[in-house]
Amino acid sequence: MKLCRFGAPGHEKPGIVDREGRIRDLSAHLADLTPEALATERLAALARLDIKSLPVVEGSPRLGPPVARVPKFIAIGLNYRDHAEEAGLAIPSEPIIFMKATSCITGPNDAIVQPPHSTKLDWELELGLVIGSTARYVDEAHALDHVAGYCIVNDVSERAFQMQSSQWDKGKGCDSFGPIGPWLVTRDEVPDPQNLDMTLAVNGQRRQSGNTATMIFSVAQIVAYCSRYMTLVPGDVITTGTPPGVGMGMKPPQWLKPGDELHLSIEGLGEQRQRVVTETAGRR
Amino acid sequence: MKLCRFGAPGHEKPGIVDREGRIRDLSAHLADLTPEALATERLAALARLDIKSLPVVEGSPRLGPPVARVPKFIAIGLNYRDHAEEAGLAIPSEPIIFMKATSCITGPNDAIVQPPHSTKLDWELELGLVIGSTARYVDEAHALDHVAGYCIVNDVSERAFQMQSSQWDKGKGCDSFGPIGPWLVTRDEVPDPQNLDMTLAVNGQRRQSGNTATMIFSVAQIVAYCSRYMTLVPGDVITTGTPPGVGMGMKPPQWLKPGDELHLSIEGLGEQRQRVVTETAGRR
Repeated sequence: MKLCRFGAPGHEKPGIVDREGRIRDLSAHLADLTPEALATERLAALARLDIKSLPVVEGSPRLGPPVARVPKFIAIGLNYRDHAEEAGLAIPSEPIIFMKATSCITGPNDAIVQPPHSTKLDWELELGLVIGSTARYVDEAHALDHVAGYCIVNDVSERAFQMQSSQWDKGKGCDSFGPIGPWLVTRDEVPDPQNLDMTLAVNGQRRQSGNTATMIFSVAQIVAYCSRYMTLVPGDVITTGTPPGVGMGMKPPQWLKPGDELHLSIEGLGEQRQRVVTETAGRR
Repeated sequence: MKLCRFGAPGHEKPGIVDREGRIRDLSAHLADLTPEALATERLAALARLDIKSLPVVEGSPRLGPPVARVPKFIAIGLNYRDHAEEAGLAIPSEPIIFMKATSCITGPNDAIVQPPHSTKLDWELELGLVIGSTARYVDEAHALDHVAGYCIVNDVSERAFQMQSSQWDKGKGCDSFGPIGPWLVTRDEVPDPQNLDMTLAVNGQRRQSGNTATMIFSVAQIVAYCSRYMTLVPGDVITTGTPPGVGMGMKPPQWLKPGDELHLSIEGLGEQRQRVVTETAGRR
């Protein structure tokens, strides 16, 4: 299933995407795509619905993040060999865990708001996964059983904020720095998460091209590893690192500016389109 | 007001502590101390209640964290000059922001569970604050208006996990690493958060003695600073750094082990008592 949430921010309804790509309204069957709704049996009940009987959502509504009330937003640093090299950093021997503030989560096509004091705004196309059932000390062989599904994440980063101290979180969690979606694609539709093509373009120019096959640590390894340091709970999002081609790695570095347009895609997971806008006094 | 939550984990009820130190049951007036309950007008309504008319809670119930469903758990590193020196790290020129996983939050007297692969378990007595109203780009002069109240936080840390990579979060967010409470003491009862004595003892031996007067960045500066990097929302907890005397700073370093007993206190905010226990297969 391709599950989504549509409507104005804070007022999204749950939907499911049919074979023709239309959104069907799920709200008669489900109040919202909350963490509780991601349980295996709850997803199985949705899968038994006759999609054609559900009302088609007309027009092109805004999409929200495909999961509501994300408890934790965990990120993995430097998980593609080539990206570590372009960043000039050593290949890590274990996954590097950091956190994005949950308040940064936005819809897949919402604007990226450049903070007024930002000078080095950058993109990071990533494969995200959403936890469906509680995971503590799970082993790699069973780790994917705890994954409800996958999604695109843009791990938007402000490099001056990120690198100002030793700790990256400050440059990773600004409002609008976490576009997620368009869909939560359930695990059954992603038989091999380690073989997905990924692309990101800025203003129509390809900047990132990769495949999840070149991850240093696989999705299963990441879930197992994280579960040894903190309990993973339903609705937690883990974003698994970015392939080469970020702005910081270009010579000279290229930073995003208001008006820039991003286009992200991952095979089978849809696409995101974001426009960079200026923070304005009115939004404060 | 001294607000608290009492009862079994996940089933806490809201309470208020009377002049005699007894807990009075607030549940007839409030379902739970959720982020929404921290709004100024909601707290003002609680303050108008006749505490003596509320039922006394008998016995000595477990206390939970005094706020339910914390959206973000933000931490500030190296915020006491002497602690930075004992850690052998430079005095920061700006607050160092990192994040603790919200899944680590526990009650003030719950056990600290040592992960099976932990070798360097440490304590950090800290002044915590809870956000009551949304804060974005607030200035220092108005920052405290957004604080609902204060609490003790033990920023429990596993130094081997924390220092294994450049990013600290992995060693800061293990389950049970975030005891909060016993109370949320509302802002009106803490006229000067920069003049509070703090003590921590391990097995009866004083290890930390400090006063919030020696913070590098004040509570108001921290709230203002964080609000420039992410929107602070009601229920967010910010823990503001630890004074000297952590185990890592002792010569030789001293680490917590199962059976150790901690006692933490901050002037006006009550006290915490935790026992360190071993992770067991039964808990997994």
